[in-house]
Parts: sequence; structure tokens; C-alpha cells
Amino acid sequence: MLEELKRQVYKANMLLPEHGLVTFTWGNVSGIDRERGLFVIKPSGVEYDRLRPEYMVVVDLDGKKVEGDLNPSMDTPTHAELYKHFPNIGGVVHTHSRWATIWAQAGRDIPAYGTTHADYINGPVPCCRDLTQEEVEEAYELNTGKVIAAAFEDRGINADHVPCALACHHGPFTWGKNPKDAVHNAVVLEEIAMMAWHTENLAAAQEKASLPDYVLEKHFSRKHGPHAYYGQRGF
Amino acid sequence: MLEELKRQVYKANMLLPEHGLVTFTWGNVSGIDRERGLFVIKPSGVEYDRLRPEYMVVVDLDGKKVEGDLNPSMDTPTHAELYKHFPNIGGVVHTHSRWATIWAQAGRDIPAYGTTHADYINGPVPCCRDLTQEEVEEAYELNTGKVIAAAFEDRGINADHVPCALACHHGPFTWGKNPKDAVHNAVVLEEIAMMAWHTENLAAAQEKASLPDYVLEKHFSRKHGPHAYYGQRGF
Amino acid sequence: MLEELKRQVYKANMLLPEHGLVTFTWGNVSGIDRERGLFVIKPSGVEYDRLRPEYMVVVDLDGKKVEGDLNPSMDTPTHAELYKHFPNIGGVVHTHSRWATIWAQAGRDIPAYGTTHADYINGPVPCCRDLTQEEVEEAYELNTGKVIAAAFEDRGINADHVPCALACHHGPFTWGKNPKDAVHNAVVLEEIAMMAWHTENLAAAQEKASLPDYVLEKHFSRKHGPHAYYGQRGF
Amino acid sequence: MLEELKRQVYKANMLLPEHGLVTFTWGNVSGIDRERGLFVIKPSGVEYDRLRPEYMVVVDLDGKKVEGDLNPSMDTPTHAELYKHFPNIGGVVHTHSRWATIWAQAGRDIPAYGTTHADYINGPVPCCRDLTQEEVEEAYELNTGKVIAAAFEDRGINADHVPCALACHHGPFTWGKNPKDAVHNAVVLEEIAMMAWHTENLAAAQEKASLPDYVLEKHFSRKHGPHAYYGQRGF
Repeated sequence: MLEELKRQVYKANMLLPEHGLVTFTWGNVSGIDRERGLFVIKPSGVEYDRLRPEYMVVVDLDGKKVEGDLNPSMDTPTHAELYKHFPNIGGVVHTHSRWATIWAQAGRDIPAYGTTHADYINGPVPCCRDLTQEEVEEAYELNTGKVIAAAFEDRGINADHVPCALACHHGPFTWGKNPKDAVHNAVVLEEIAMMAWHTENLAAAQEKASLPDYVLEKHFSRKHGPHAYYGQRGF
Repeated sequence: MLEELKRQVYKANMLLPEHGLVTFTWGNVSGIDRERGLFVIKPSGVEYDRLRPEYMVVVDLDGKKVEGDLNPSMDTPTHAELYKHFPNIGGVVHTHSRWATIWAQAGRDIPAYGTTHADYINGPVPCCRDLTQEEVEEAYELNTGKVIAAAFEDRGINADHVPCALACHHGPFTWGKNPKDAVHNAVVLEEIAMMAWHTENLAAAQEKASLPDYVLEKHFSRKHGPHAYYGQRGF
Repeated sequence: MLEELKRQVYKANMLLPEHGLVTFTWGNVSGIDRERGLFVIKPSGVEYDRLRPEYMVVVDLDGKKVEGDLNPSMDTPTHAELYKHFPNIGGVVHTHSRWATIWAQAGRDIPAYGTTHADYINGPVPCCRDLTQEEVEEAYELNTGKVIAAAFEDRGINADHVPCALACHHGPFTWGKNPKDAVHNAVVLEEIAMMAWHTENLAAAQEKASLPDYVLEKHFSRKHGPHAYYGQRGF
Repeated sequence: MLEELKRQVYKANMLLPEHGLVTFTWGNVSGIDRERGLFVIKPSGVEYDRLRPEYMVVVDLDGKKVEGDLNPSMDTPTHAELYKHFPNIGGVVHTHSRWATIWAQAGRDIPAYGTTHADYINGPVPCCRDLTQEEVEEAYELNTGKVIAAAFEDRGINADHVPCALACHHGPFTWGKNPKDAVHNAVVLEEIAMMAWHTENLAAAQEKASLPDYVLEKHFSRKHGPHAYYGQRGF
């Protein structure tokens, strides 16, 4: 069942290593069939170079397996929760991609520092609260999803305009209109997380005295203008 | 028309992913035919691996399409404005390359900290002012170009000696005598932006106590001199 | 002798350059046959692209060569010491991988800042004390192993749950149930070391004012919603 | 003449892009024939993918061309000066490799922070003083070499044990017993420069509170031990 969706979810999963978003098996993509109320997700712990479309697992919105020989991703209940709360989304991605995870580990929202961010995400990327000990012990993955959904509701964020969140001390979840689009947003998030980190640390740096003027002039004129002596003529 | 220029602009665009300056479609290159007053630019939102020379769009200096089936890059009015104000340039590049964008997001000029910078750019890389709300709402891309041109005029910078600028909170624009040369300058800018960032943050760091002398001596002498015991003899 | 183990150790060594953990020959992997009390290790100073399974050297738990034409890795006594003190481990890896080495050079434990760390390492990664001058001069490599083992004993750390340590001012040692698993843990350590470094430096950075709202809105709406004008229709 | 040396110098030059040490043509390697008092160096401004052994230029120790159709590297007088002052060296490399250049731009020696440094460089990497305006205008490249040699003499550094120096605000020079060995040292310098930068900035960072214990425990036990539920059985 859902063979076309399995193929899409498989392909979207394979984009994760291609874009350098995963180490080993630290990531998973799912895609939903809204009419049937079922979604397809990567099996748990299977290495990307062994993955095949037919290994994808079909689960319902309670995260119960409907079809498939393998166990679904451990994070399945989180995906299910996001599909329930965000009715327009068609695909979900979870990774431990480096830069987004760094912000999650610091427990910080990613502020919108530039237009690259604004092109895709209409406001800061929210970093959710830590789960309580009770929430962790009771139903860790399910509650991870609930805490993300609650952050969007409490802060009045529109999940269609902010297609990503950081699970505190954990890592990013992104979504989109389909699995491929959710991966696209995971790449965007990683890029803007890297740039935001360096934007803040540039603000914290100290401006130095620049190059002496006579060295600036010498180097520029060695390569440019009438007295340049760099390179070859007519080579 | 302008088939040879289209080929050059196509090739220059393809250098952007090759040099790691773009993610997805976040960049564009144009090239101008000064005699005809027309320039050729990448179509908007077309992925690099689908790009073909014949997709390039011909526009006039008001940014109006003269030839081509596809929409020109959204940033076309910015390119047009730069061609108007800087009469010696033959190509323009815009990207969201990471390190240059980080300086743009921080709203900072890039000081000339080394001879690598001086080899190409005769002074700091100017970061322009933010556009006002009115400028954004009226004609965002056109005014982006006007603000760059105004920065050069107000600060008395020669665009032939400083072939690049940072659009505040946005990203870099570079130019050159032709499209390929403009891409060359985009690579240079990215490199010097990376090094300037780390130069400032090194100045802000704290010097630590170095390695104990007896460990320094031990490690050097394990590998070098008469008592070395690293490696193989005659292998 | 131990031909199958040699093949495993060879293959595990070849994973080091594949994962970007070594420059030149700065790393080595070993694997042990617990029944015979012998282990197999990379020869000293042999470049990875010249390595072959039959070059692997067999040594006993005093680090003495039992079989092989080449000298074993200089770090053999450290490996031996780890096998003696940690009875459940089957493979050991030493590298100078960048991020783990940075923490070692700073003389710092790596705190558990996120769940990526927690997935593999049940507590901080211990950075051991520097060797004394006497320990260095007497038996440097052997004492490096003793100092690691002492750190685990003194601090009550279970080596099965914390499969790695930092030799102060030197670099990481990792281990696992077999040579491949030890390399897996070396990759994990490098990843969490990179993220922990940036987590701390993010905490030290300064939050900046974010993008003006009207630019955020403009950029998002250029690409999304009813007034978007980015890209092509039906291309 | 010197065909074998030309081949060696050519090959060593080609290692620079292979090791990621150069952008465009920003680097050059030379090698000397001590008996004849002649050395072979890369031609100026020729791109690496167009380079051929027969393009190498033969010059004497005053930097004058003895054989070759092309102009020698602009930095030839610096190489010549190093060969004169350091009698045991057989090859010289100059690059603008990122991390070493960052230290040069900051005007800082690189302290010996770890054993990776100690394995190759017996003390700090010296950053020389800036040239005076007179030295720049009179004979820039020659005086660059003189200033490096003076730094070693004034500070009593043995160039055989410290095979590298930083030209202030410019970039690294390294040397070795032959051209290939000089490139090897250029790779080492880049690596230790990267790690030293991050070692200092780690010392400046702020330790954060680590992960809550109950999350650490949960994540470790999801993947390890009797209650693990990650992955597949027997796949």
C-alpha cells in the first residue's frame, strides 16, 4: 500500500546524506496520506546505503504500525503528533544536523538576522522548552511532539509560515507540503543556523587595526594597473 | 540575440555551485553588452542542474525583458542599477554565500586585514545602510541597487578598485570586467570574509599556557633526530 | 595468525580517512583476541593508501611484537594498557581528529550538552591529567594509558558506558566492542566535540537586534503567498 | 636543465590544490639544487589545472631567471632569501591557506598547544614583524624574506626544527628537506593553526549547564542495555 508515497519518502530520506545533514542513521523523513490518515516513515536504525523503498513503514496517526517488516523510526510518535497539530503539512524531517543542533543545545531561538532566513521562515525559529522528568519517563517521543505543538500554540506561531522548530537539547524538526519540501526546509534551517551563529559571534568580536596603507597599496598595485608585475602576458 | 553573451553568462552562473557559493538557487550572474545597452541574466528560481544557455533572459537597463521565455531573476533591477552607476563593469554577481552574508547580517564593513584582501580590493568592503520601510515597499530591488551606488558615491569609493559591496542584512554583490571576473571576485570576497571573521575573533580570544616543555621535546624527538622511533626504516 | 582479525583491523583503519578523522598517518586502530591475549595493530607511520591487511602487526599485552615485519604503532603500549584495564572492549582507536583534539588541547572535559552525546556517552567525556615529566621520560606511551585508566577509576566512570577519553594536550582515544565499533565511537566523539564547542561559544555570544519587520515581511512575501513573484509558473 | 627537479617541483605544486591549501593561484612551491646554486619555481599566475612540468622556471639565488619562457612567481626573491639563510632546506612553499593566514593577519605567533604541533614544530610558529614603508617600497618580496630570516636569528630559532613562519598580515611560508616535505609541513601548519585558534576560543567560552540527568539516562538507555528499543533485531 501507498507505494508511490513510499518511493517519495525513500527519496527524501536519501537527500539527507546527500546534503550532509546526517551522520550514520541520525535522521528520518516521513510523508503523510491525509485522506487515509496514514503516514510512511523510515525504519529505525537502518543505514542509508542499505535503505530501499520497500523498507519504509506505514503507520497510523497513533504511531501504530499498519504495514512493514521493520520497526518504524523511534521518533514516529513525534512525527504523528506534528501531523495531528499542523493540518497543512505533508512531510516531516528530523535530524541532528550540526548547526541547528547547536542552537537546540544552547536552548536558544534562532533570531531572523537576514533575508535568507526571511525568504523561508517568517519569524524566529522557536526553541521549545525542555521536557519535564515525568514527560520523559512517561512517553518521551510523544511528548516531544506535544511540546513543539504547544510552543506554536502558546506563542501564536503559524506552522505554515515557520516550518521548523528546535527540540531543546536535542535537535531540529522541519516540515513542508511534502517530504521533499520538508528536506528543503531542513537544508535552509541548517544554513541560516550556521550564519546566525557567526553573526552573533561577529558582533561579539573586537575590531582590529587594519593593514598598513602602504602594504594595501603595494599589494593592489602589484596585480592591477600600469605597474602590475603579476602573472604572464599573453599566456 | 546576444548568443555569445548568453553562453558566457550561463557558464559564469554554473561556476557558483562549483565554487560552493550557492545553496539551491540563491544566486545569479549577469553580463552586459554596453553597446546595445542590454544585459543577460539568469532566470528566476531555476535550479542550476536544469539551467541551459538558451534559458538566459535579455533585459534592458530599466530591467524590462527584451527576449526570453522565462522571468528574469527577481534581483534584475539591482543589477540594472549597478550597470548604470558603474560604467566600467561588464558582469554582476549576487549570492548568499555564507561568510560574506554573515558580515552583511552583522551590518559591518569588512576591514582590510591582510594582503589577500589587498591583492583584489583596495580598501574595506562597504556594508551599505538598511533600506527604509518606504524604500522596501516602493521598489525593493531597485532601491537595493540605488543604496549600493549611493554608498560608493558618498564615501568616495572607486568601484573599479573595490569590486564588491554588502547589502545590509542581505548578502554580497560583486562585479568585474566580465561575468567570469565578477564570479572570481565573489570567490575572493567569500575567502577574505571568512578570514577577517576569524582574525577578529582571534584578537578577542585568550592566550593559554602552552604545552609543557618536556612534552614538546618528547614528541618532537620521537619523530625527529637520532633517537626517533616513529615509522619504519626502508619501507 | 589471526588473519580474520587482521582483516577487521585493516578495514577499521581504512575507515579513519574515509570519515575525515586523520591527516597523513595521525591515527591507528587495534583489535584484540581476548582468548589468546594478543592484539593486532596498524604499523607505525605507514600511509593509509599503502596499507594492506598483511602489514598489521600482532603484539601481546606487554606491547611486544609476536608477528609481523613492520614496527607496530608507537602508541601500542597505550592500547595495551587500555585492553588490560577495560576487560569488555574489543577495539581501540587513537586519532588527532580536529574537534576532539581541540578539547584535549584546552584540557577540558566535554560536557553532555545534548541528546546526540547522550545517545552514545553516558556522562562527560573525561580529559585526563597531564603526565608528569618523570612519566614522560620513563615510559611515555605506557603512562598515557595508565593515566587514562586511572581517570576512569578515580572518577568512578564505567568504560562500557563512556567509550572515550581525551589524553590531555594530545588527542582522543575511543574504544568499542570491536575495531569497527571503536571507529564508530571516534566519529561520534568528533561530532559531539564540534557541537559542544559551538554550544559554549553561542552561550558567550551577544544577541543582536534582528531584521527589521518590514524586510522580513517583504522577503517572505516575495516567495510565498498570493503576491509572490519569485520563480517561474509551470516550468 | 634540472628536469628531474622540475618534475618534483611540479608535483609538489599540484599537491597544494589537492590538500585544499590554495584558492585560484594563491600559492607556489620551489625546490633547490644546492650544488648548482639554482632553484626551480612555479611560474607567476598560471592556474593549477594548466600547469605542466616544463613551465617551471629556473632561477639563481639572486632570483634572476636562468631558464624558462614564463615569468617566475612574484615571490621568487622571498624563496631565494630563505634558501640563502637556511642552508639545510631543499624546498619552500608559500600559500594563503586559511587558518595560517588568519594567525598572520592577527599578527600572532602560534603557540604550541598540543602534541600534534610538537610532532613537527619544536616551539611556537613565529609571526614576523610588519615591513616598514621603506622596505615595502624598496624591494617588497626580497625584504619579506629578510624579515623572516631576521626573526629566526634574533629569536635564536633553528629553522630545521621550526620549518615555518608567518609573514605578518600576509600568510605562511614553510620549508623542508625537499619540495614534497615542504608541502607536508604546509599541511601540518594549516591543521595546527586551525586547532590552536579553536583551543584559545574554547578557553574564552563559557561553560553551560549540561543536559538534565533524566534526559541523558533516557537517551542512553533507548539505544543501549536491556530496555533499548532503537533499531532492528537481526536485520
